[in-house]
Amino acid sequence: MARVSPEHLEARRRQILDGARRCFLRNGFHAASMQDVLKESGLSAGAVYRYFRSKEEIVAAVAQEALATIRASFERVAAAEVPPLPDELFAEVFGRLREFMGTGEDPRELPRLLVQIWGEALRNEELAETVNEAYAHLSVQWARLVEAYQARGWVHPQANTVHVARTLIGAVQGYFVQQALWGGIAPEEFAKGLRALVGMEVPADADAAGPGEGRGGAG
Amino acid sequence: MARVSPEHLEARRRQILDGARRCFLRNGFHAASMQDVLKESGLSAGAVYRYFRSKEEIVAAVAQEALATIRASFERVAAAEVPPLPDELFAEVFGRLREFMGTGEDPRELPRLLVQIWGEALRNEELAETVNEAYAHLSVQWARLVEAYQARGWVHPQANTVHVARTLIGAVQGYFVQQALWGGIAPEEFAKGLRALVGMEVPADADAAGPGEGRGGAG
Repeated sequence: MARVSPEHLEARRRQILDGARRCFLRNGFHAASMQDVLKESGLSAGAVYRYFRSKEEIVAAVAQEALATIRASFERVAAAEVPPLPDELFAEVFGRLREFMGTGEDPRELPRLLVQIWGEALRNEELAETVNEAYAHLSVQWARLVEAYQARGWVHPQANTVHVARTLIGAVQGYFVQQALWGGIAPEEFAKGLRALVGMEVPADADAAGPGEGRGGAG
Repeated sequence: MARVSPEHLEARRRQILDGARRCFLRNGFHAASMQDVLKESGLSAGAVYRYFRSKEEIVAAVAQEALATIRASFERVAAAEVPPLPDELFAEVFGRLREFMGTGEDPRELPRLLVQIWGEALRNEELAETVNEAYAHLSVQWARLVEAYQARGWVHPQANTVHVARTLIGAVQGYFVQQALWGGIAPEEFAKGLRALVGMEVPADADAAGPGEGRGGAG
């Protein structure tokens, strides 16, 4: 292989991944063939196989990039000194994701890719590992955020941080599902829904309060 | 076609759908062929084609059934006089889903099927319609539940019921994603996380309270 600059390598890799992503979004991971990927990226088989040995490797790289995007957006926001409330965090992360994806991009692209990644991870062990790693990392970070809530008295001190983190991640995953399927769901609306939920007037956690503590009609 | 009893028709249909579901769970909608479905259901092509004209029709029927299961579980629970809190609703619905699926079934089966249905709906318009219809119906019901919360003063009166309903549905969808990908997530843990979230001590909704209302470190 001829010596080429790292910039050239990266640009070619980018070209392949961008083409592959468009392909996968249109046809799904399964139905998209290596031929489709070659055609979409405008490169020869020889060129592409220098970077990726198989469609599976390209799928893994596209998935890894999508997951890294979410992770990076989250990390920057969660590092704030005053922990953002779930809805603020959500709105911020989505602002950053939109920045990353650029204004020209379809806001459904990343959600659609994610839904496909989840589906593919059910049968593709390598991809499942990539997904697991990304979420393990996210879970730790969200759990830290929940700890920060607890330190400020916003979340019940006996709540399990991992369970709360999981539920928060779940809400975001649900947003992705809805955005992928239907589109047009403004992140702001979802954030407001989240705010109304965390602002609910409910009695203290039943487990912590012990039995016999009825539900009060607060408010 | 010979005259047969409705029971016979239903039993055959059941046999096909059960076999198809197992196939789809193993291989995904795309990779599973009509041959696989025939083999798994133990019926001849002639028998199966009497009930379904194509694999697509079988996919649609399997999806419809999965969505109907969720809807039915939800409807029974949401009809209670005192509106269940989100975590109670979640725990109840999952209890009923488990009942429906039977103890012998893999608790990841329905979640895995759902994740596949979402992915498939991105490219299959007929399936997308089935999914949309199911969620439109669910959204209306959840919005009613949020109204009931508002009537009792549990949710801010100015919160948009549809946004809150959407976020609640999102949390459940997120649970399905996590259960599909990783399994072993007890619904009780997710419910507790949800309870801790709705029990968060946050200031009144910023939009309703107006600007200048800072975040209090309540609790």
